[in-house]
Amino acid sequence: MRTQVCVIGAGPAGLTLAHLLHRQGIECVVIEAQSQAHIESRVRAGVLEQPTVDLLTEIGLADRLRREGMLHHGINLRFDGATHRIDFAELTGGQAITVYAQQELVKDLIASLAPPILFEVDSVRVDDTRVSFVHEGVERTVDCDFVAGCDGFHGVSRASIPTGALSAYERVYPCAWLGILARTKPAAEELIYARHPDGFALHSMRGPTVTRQYLQVPPDTSLTDWPDDRIWAALSRRLGEPGLEQGEIFDRGVTALRSFVVEPMRHGSLFLVGDSAHIVPATGAKGLNLAVADAVALSYGLGAHYAGTPDELAKYSARCLRRVWQVQHFSWWMTALLHNLTGTDAFDERLRHAELDRVVAAPSAARNLAENYVGLPFAVGWSWR
Amino acid sequence: MRTQVCVIGAGPAGLTLAHLLHRQGIECVVIEAQSQAHIESRVRAGVLEQPTVDLLTEIGLADRLRREGMLHHGINLRFDGATHRIDFAELTGGQAITVYAQQELVKDLIASLAPPILFEVDSVRVDDTRVSFVHEGVERTVDCDFVAGCDGFHGVSRASIPTGALSAYERVYPCAWLGILARTKPAAEELIYARHPDGFALHSMRGPTVTRQYLQVPPDTSLTDWPDDRIWAALSRRLGEPGLEQGEIFDRGVTALRSFVVEPMRHGSLFLVGDSAHIVPATGAKGLNLAVADAVALSYGLGAHYAGTPDELAKYSARCLRRVWQVQHFSWWMTALLHNLTGTDAFDERLRHAELDRVVAAPSAARNLAENYVGLPFAVGWSWR
Repeated sequence: MRTQVCVIGAGPAGLTLAHLLHRQGIECVVIEAQSQAHIESRVRAGVLEQPTVDLLTEIGLADRLRREGMLHHGINLRFDGATHRIDFAELTGGQAITVYAQQELVKDLIASLAPPILFEVDSVRVDDTRVSFVHEGVERTVDCDFVAGCDGFHGVSRASIPTGALSAYERVYPCAWLGILARTKPAAEELIYARHPDGFALHSMRGPTVTRQYLQVPPDTSLTDWPDDRIWAALSRRLGEPGLEQGEIFDRGVTALRSFVVEPMRHGSLFLVGDSAHIVPATGAKGLNLAVADAVALSYGLGAHYAGTPDELAKYSARCLRRVWQVQHFSWWMTALLHNLTGTDAFDERLRHAELDRVVAAPSAARNLAENYVGLPFAVGWSWR
Repeated sequence: MRTQVCVIGAGPAGLTLAHLLHRQGIECVVIEAQSQAHIESRVRAGVLEQPTVDLLTEIGLADRLRREGMLHHGINLRFDGATHRIDFAELTGGQAITVYAQQELVKDLIASLAPPILFEVDSVRVDDTRVSFVHEGVERTVDCDFVAGCDGFHGVSRASIPTGALSAYERVYPCAWLGILARTKPAAEELIYARHPDGFALHSMRGPTVTRQYLQVPPDTSLTDWPDDRIWAALSRRLGEPGLEQGEIFDRGVTALRSFVVEPMRHGSLFLVGDSAHIVPATGAKGLNLAVADAVALSYGLGAHYAGTPDELAKYSARCLRRVWQVQHFSWWMTALLHNLTGTDAFDERLRHAELDRVVAAPSAARNLAENYVGLPFAVGWSWR
């Protein structure tokens, strides 16, 4: 098979990229290791930034998310027994986030995608501009001009790059998140981020009758350590919601908190996009949105390349990384601010408290948080429109 | 001797407090361990915040500093070989800092002070409301209602409080500052804060022909390690000023960088004011200004006490500490942002770079820095005027 761009991975990064390439008349093929049913149901991110929603609207993919997603014009920060609202709309000139589950966005992106997707591919190999794999029992190869590695942190794309060609930057946090999906009504209209002596908690939602809630837990915790009663008791204590509604927990899991970046985000004709190049701790809800921003930068660079201005493509990695590091900083900062992290002392604790105090008291500090939370422009220091 | 308030220490904290008490008709005596000549010539801080200048103007003590001090409406941040100006005036609605040496301010405060100052006192002891000392070879006692401990980090005031009555919070940084005074023309109209792979440097000035410059050095460095040539070479490299003017260095010293706070800032009738309660690393130029803010809070509380509303005085420590911790946070943040600190890794390094990048690119982040630098209101969450 011959195409212009082989996209490895049908998550938000790969699917968005495939849409953006197709709109520019660039031919691509998407290959995905999982089944369609799997990627359309797995529970992942749930917050879309304003620039993500703007992009999806612009390319005609936002009808359902605008209908079914929940528009939030703020979040709540809770500490010292009091809740403080950060008003995004007021602080950012009307911007907002949209609560919409990743798997729903993936369904929308797949349903309207023109380029072909091959699901359940196996034994994927990347050799420069040739991608080989097994599909429905048959060995296949795709010859292409460029490969887009959109296959996540554990994918083959980054692994196919020789050791030594990339520099890695990493931070593993001394805690994890226990996340649940439960059939309960949300306790508030907007997310509650809570800092508590017992640890961080986040109250979020996936609709009027489903909540998505998280607890900071030790990194080596097991789900068996957390029977339902313990989860509900910890959530209601940390969130300061004594009457927190309990209901059936129909999904639960433990996720590590990690910061990770490789530089550069390109090796020869292979471009790393989204989680294959960087991971953020979930605190800032940035992972999916960063992937979309990378896809925008790559589609812009590839469009320029095929239009005869290859210099733009050469800037892909540097352009992405400038924004990636700003978002990494924000995600690290939200994490450090709201969690009880071992390795910190009473002085650190007081500093974090002072910073929270400043954020809720000073509009400039609140605005900096709000601008980051609703989403930095996809292009920081350049222009793609 | 009998008075209402015994003020221990004739630095900016004690002298400002004595002025403010006298204006309210509260009687006080100031005692100081050093000679007048010594405290009027020792080289210390050099940046006055807007609220400090506003206060001094209001009480008629700002004539000389307004005439001889240098009004700066911004600072320069230098990193990655480029200089970025942070425009205080634009970001804070016209606020500024005034470059004016501490010893000049001390002269002004002493020259116009009505309450008596006893210099060169020795063997000071604080026993509740009795302060004993030796002055001109004679044992003296002052009996008072309250004692204001304005005698700095190494003073007797904090040391007189029983162990266990105070909680201390501390951070010692793995570096120090080598500071010089030199007869050279400033290289820029405003301060230059430089982050460089070799370490931090600060270019500041005390007038049109005198510069005050600092270099990050190892904490165990000796002045003999730093002959003039080495100082000038390091300054010009770190500041990115190849033609940096060299001249006679007529004062030099090494200062540790330390963050320190005790809580509460009161023990019985003894109130801690300024450096006796807290130390900030010099990066944010906050030490003198914090001391003045404490003096304002204490004079307000004492004024209310003598006017028959003692509750205000009971709030002294909590009111001060809220602002102290915000300023501690800012000073820590400026220090971490601009120094090469051991104990950090390549990930931290990238985070700091991203934060600097954000500060120079995003007005909200720049405004947060500017508001802190020109000075938070003396009363954070309460009102004293």
